[in-house]
Amino acid sequence: MAGNTFGKLYRVTTFGESHGKAVGAIIDGCPSNISLCESDIQLYLNRRRPNASDLSTPRAEKDKVEILSGVFEGKTLGTPICAIVRNEDIGTSEYGVLKNIYRPGHADYTYEKKYGIRDYRSGGRSSGRETIGRVIGGSVAAKVLKEKGIIVSARGNYDLSRLANENGDVDFENINDSIGGIVECKVKGCPAGLGEPVFDKLDAELAKACMSIGAIKGVEIGAGFDAANMTGSENNDEMAAGEKFLSNNAGGILGGISNGDDIIIRVAVKPTPTVAKKQKTIDIYGNETEVELKGRNDICIVDRVVVVVESMVAMTILDYYLQNLKIMF
Amino acid sequence: MAGNTFGKLYRVTTFGESHGKAVGAIIDGCPSNISLCESDIQLYLNRRRPNASDLSTPRAEKDKVEILSGVFEGKTLGTPICAIVRNEDIGTSEYGVLKNIYRPGHADYTYEKKYGIRDYRSGGRSSGRETIGRVIGGSVAAKVLKEKGIIVSARGNYDLSRLANENGDVDFENINDSIGGIVECKVKGCPAGLGEPVFDKLDAELAKACMSIGAIKGVEIGAGFDAANMTGSENNDEMAAGEKFLSNNAGGILGGISNGDDIIIRVAVKPTPTVAKKQKTIDIYGNETEVELKGRNDICIVDRVVVVVESMVAMTILDYYLQNLKIMF
Amino acid sequence: MAGNTFGKLYRVTTFGESHGKAVGAIIDGCPSNISLCESDIQLYLNRRRPNASDLSTPRAEKDKVEILSGVFEGKTLGTPICAIVRNEDIGTSEYGVLKNIYRPGHADYTYEKKYGIRDYRSGGRSSGRETIGRVIGGSVAAKVLKEKGIIVSARGNYDLSRLANENGDVDFENINDSIGGIVECKVKGCPAGLGEPVFDKLDAELAKACMSIGAIKGVEIGAGFDAANMTGSENNDEMAAGEKFLSNNAGGILGGISNGDDIIIRVAVKPTPTVAKKQKTIDIYGNETEVELKGRNDICIVDRVVVVVESMVAMTILDYYLQNLKIMF
Amino acid sequence: MAGNTFGKLYRVTTFGESHGKAVGAIIDGCPSNISLCESDIQLYLNRRRPNASDLSTPRAEKDKVEILSGVFEGKTLGTPICAIVRNEDIGTSEYGVLKNIYRPGHADYTYEKKYGIRDYRSGGRSSGRETIGRVIGGSVAAKVLKEKGIIVSARGNYDLSRLANENGDVDFENINDSIGGIVECKVKGCPAGLGEPVFDKLDAELAKACMSIGAIKGVEIGAGFDAANMTGSENNDEMAAGEKFLSNNAGGILGGISNGDDIIIRVAVKPTPTVAKKQKTIDIYGNETEVELKGRNDICIVDRVVVVVESMVAMTILDYYLQNLKIMF
Repeated sequence: MAGNTFGKLYRVTTFGESHGKAVGAIIDGCPSNISLCESDIQLYLNRRRPNASDLSTPRAEKDKVEILSGVFEGKTLGTPICAIVRNEDIGTSEYGVLKNIYRPGHADYTYEKKYGIRDYRSGGRSSGRETIGRVIGGSVAAKVLKEKGIIVSARGNYDLSRLANENGDVDFENINDSIGGIVECKVKGCPAGLGEPVFDKLDAELAKACMSIGAIKGVEIGAGFDAANMTGSENNDEMAAGEKFLSNNAGGILGGISNGDDIIIRVAVKPTPTVAKKQKTIDIYGNETEVELKGRNDICIVDRVVVVVESMVAMTILDYYLQNLKIMF
Repeated sequence: MAGNTFGKLYRVTTFGESHGKAVGAIIDGCPSNISLCESDIQLYLNRRRPNASDLSTPRAEKDKVEILSGVFEGKTLGTPICAIVRNEDIGTSEYGVLKNIYRPGHADYTYEKKYGIRDYRSGGRSSGRETIGRVIGGSVAAKVLKEKGIIVSARGNYDLSRLANENGDVDFENINDSIGGIVECKVKGCPAGLGEPVFDKLDAELAKACMSIGAIKGVEIGAGFDAANMTGSENNDEMAAGEKFLSNNAGGILGGISNGDDIIIRVAVKPTPTVAKKQKTIDIYGNETEVELKGRNDICIVDRVVVVVESMVAMTILDYYLQNLKIMF
Repeated sequence: MAGNTFGKLYRVTTFGESHGKAVGAIIDGCPSNISLCESDIQLYLNRRRPNASDLSTPRAEKDKVEILSGVFEGKTLGTPICAIVRNEDIGTSEYGVLKNIYRPGHADYTYEKKYGIRDYRSGGRSSGRETIGRVIGGSVAAKVLKEKGIIVSARGNYDLSRLANENGDVDFENINDSIGGIVECKVKGCPAGLGEPVFDKLDAELAKACMSIGAIKGVEIGAGFDAANMTGSENNDEMAAGEKFLSNNAGGILGGISNGDDIIIRVAVKPTPTVAKKQKTIDIYGNETEVELKGRNDICIVDRVVVVVESMVAMTILDYYLQNLKIMF
Repeated sequence: MAGNTFGKLYRVTTFGESHGKAVGAIIDGCPSNISLCESDIQLYLNRRRPNASDLSTPRAEKDKVEILSGVFEGKTLGTPICAIVRNEDIGTSEYGVLKNIYRPGHADYTYEKKYGIRDYRSGGRSSGRETIGRVIGGSVAAKVLKEKGIIVSARGNYDLSRLANENGDVDFENINDSIGGIVECKVKGCPAGLGEPVFDKLDAELAKACMSIGAIKGVEIGAGFDAANMTGSENNDEMAAGEKFLSNNAGGILGGISNGDDIIIRVAVKPTPTVAKKQKTIDIYGNETEVELKGRNDICIVDRVVVVVESMVAMTILDYYLQNLKIMF
């Protein structure tokens, strides 16, 4: 139980079901005296929202954030920052069909097994809407990091050709499948020394942070899986004067501690499981059936995952930055 | 600071430098009344040791474990189990050369940056010898899991041809480089329901557990990075009667919760950075220099990492098993 | 940083300043399938509110709770329960005087020292209003415990005669001082076996839980401080058939583990520091000055603290109940 | 489960049964580059040992500490410090009588209920010998704090007259009962700003730290229980120029944060439950019986508890000192 908090000193606890009253987060441990207003968070939330492209769900929410605490006269107090987003577009009738079946690739079955109850309206807590809480936590972390010259940025990559018809065209009106992709995230300006060996290595926590995002199935640092096919002399990053590294196969982390070079993380995003194709499944009584999910679905969520990855990485880096402050004797 | 503990309810805290007096672990939260003796741990430690093959370091230690507490008349008490392994083969003279330089691919530089001091004798705490504590924790976890019918097993895969000479032969006497590889771990018999969404998803914690092992640079679950290139309808695991899944691209985890199918984790092992080739680096004063590391080195550590991966996975699964025990109303 | 979360498996994170937009809590780790509605919480919040007696502040808030997540069709989902109370009666003008001085007995000075900023409007986060989050967490814990037959109840005790005038009468219209008192809390129906030695003993965590309430300056278990003056043979609780104890000096806890008898906790409540008498203090520039706090103040908060103590104890007992669930082999 | 770790950034995990092979601790998170040797710890351990006085058990152990890791060339590495003390005087035969009965006032019954197994030899893990791990952790914390000018010291107080015979004399040869007492601990030189509101207030954590010691039944801060009988104007500590407090009823803590004044904690020590008088109890089959505990017992453990209280307080203060390090913008 109780897995909705991330971080040790910069701690973010999120809440909210897709079709409940609201989603949001409490940030505990944010340094005091940081300038912060709702638009700092809103900018990040807007990047998470379905955009005008053909690839995203047409769910029409404004996702307007409201800060309930922790900020006074435009500055953080050092006390918990609670920020919420009301769910507005709650048309539940269309979700009735989901009450009695387990959608393939979704968490319906496992939530039922774990809790013996589930909010079947579009996944409830396991919906992608849960990431709003992450982005709240991440946007504030990014603001704090920026004051220290640390910048976290990610970009997505995916191949629409998998969805092309026999003519090689992508017919957005009639796509009934989805695709995944890769998100790569880079941290620039991170000082050397962040990371807590042995179990809480910086790369270990980054891996957890990213893998905890719903659709992520793989994480690699620096050369990652390619390192498995390199020799030691190829993979080692040699050093030169100025404490410079001549390559960055390590992805900025050695022995679990940042080395001052750019930190590089790459994650695999699985295709969203909601597809308008008939799929075999079972109902909650164990009977075999089929399901075809129509309606407002993302064809590719990679673009929307980008800001979520940035958020998780920013929260991790800030948490380790705070953990690394040390007594100077 | 303070990253040497793993787990929430089954907690393992490790200690020890490569050339200090001893390495070991305290296991806190092990269920009581489990049969346990030193040979249960020793069997796992023996698998971690350099074996007779040509690929491992000739360091000749017996790694004999001694249990100091927590076991009474052959049963666990529910109190902390402390187990230690004395370091026997401490020939430090040959490590003098390491005092003033940073070895490429090692954590020498980052430990210096973080702590302002380091045990330069073969890496000290960042040495692979640190994994003895992990294997102590993992061997006991595996023993407990076995009583619940849960079996964790891994195997390694690597390609020696990278080290072949122009004739295609591998000349073990004169190898001066190293290779990495892949370790795949499978958990059989794990019940559905393990995992704590949102941030403490089972796959997230497994990713952290594995990535925290020194040489690991990537982790994937189920289809992993391949999922990025699949369509939703290909990647989704359909279900059939008997709560069976017709495929296992999910790797046994949906929404961060185990689904009852086999759990599949794959990790990338980088080539060990200690190679007998000249490499550019700097000394602790910032001057450029070269280093060539001779002596007892592993050509490939994949075989030795296998039991470490098993250990981390076993610890994670047991911890989540305990977290999942719940009130039945 | 980051001290706004209580508990390990039943985790309550609170937020909110006295004169911010709202106060509230996220409960993470509440068991699923528990009947819960807003009135369950509201009943407890009403007990915390200033009542009609002459002893409490006339602040006229309804403290109406709203559940934002974690409950579906009247049952808990096992996901985070976020509940908030909007602050309604925010007349800040009268607090302007507090901007530049440190009130004796309040946390103004220490918050300034720690954070370099503070919400000076009636204490901000250090206001007694913060306890609303505790009562939200405690009311839900009490509901869960009740289903297991565990009842937590407290009562207060204080001596108004300290405020009497020379005639022995208490003139409520003109009281310019305040008094403290004692709250005693009893847990009935708690099974033996709860508590985690060594550092997380049940009595240790209860002491922390209660001492974390703003006005509490002392905590004792069972015979408490009286035990210091008893002999071993007087203080020991002898046992009889039926696993009964013949006395309860231990207060239901032995070696940090519940013994099945009633758990008894007693706490000392200091007099509320807000008094309508001139007191010496300094301003934020270090200059000596005097302050006299008029307006709506509690003469005695003991009656209001009762439900807060119950809440903290209920949260602690539930958390340890969940921690004590164990594998049966 | 898993309650054998104390602290968040300065973390101490202890292990060991009274009659097992060894007791000890791992300290994780100790700052690096602190001078430390075994004698720093030994000095504290010697203060915990039964001394020459008539009041303590004649158990004749040297309690010699051995540091296994974390120190290199006389300095801390920032890695885990493992220190152990071998149990030498293990005469178990005399403890056979304890196998089948529950001693009044001891944890025999509750350990049996919790774990279904117990090391019956003198209490096993619940023995006072467990405090060796605490003193290891505390002695190192005190060393670090001293470098910051923070001094933790305690003293005990008890009344032997409770054990006097009718002539008013205490006949040490024939005492068959025991007494408790009070330990008062003072922290001098602690800066303002330590403590993490709301739940992790400095006084809350100190209360937990002290209440976790086996024999402690009550904790108070500053005026403590006396504050319950004071008026607000009496109890408030007024301030004067130089950021001085004119009294210290708060015990150096306001709103859970240190105010720069001396921190004052007082704890109630119960009389040791091992007395040479017949007492009613039950055996492990539930049958009523009597027990009389002869042999090597402490008449009063207050003097030995002093260094344990100091240790717990030092660990707490250092942990909060580290938590309070913050980013300066």
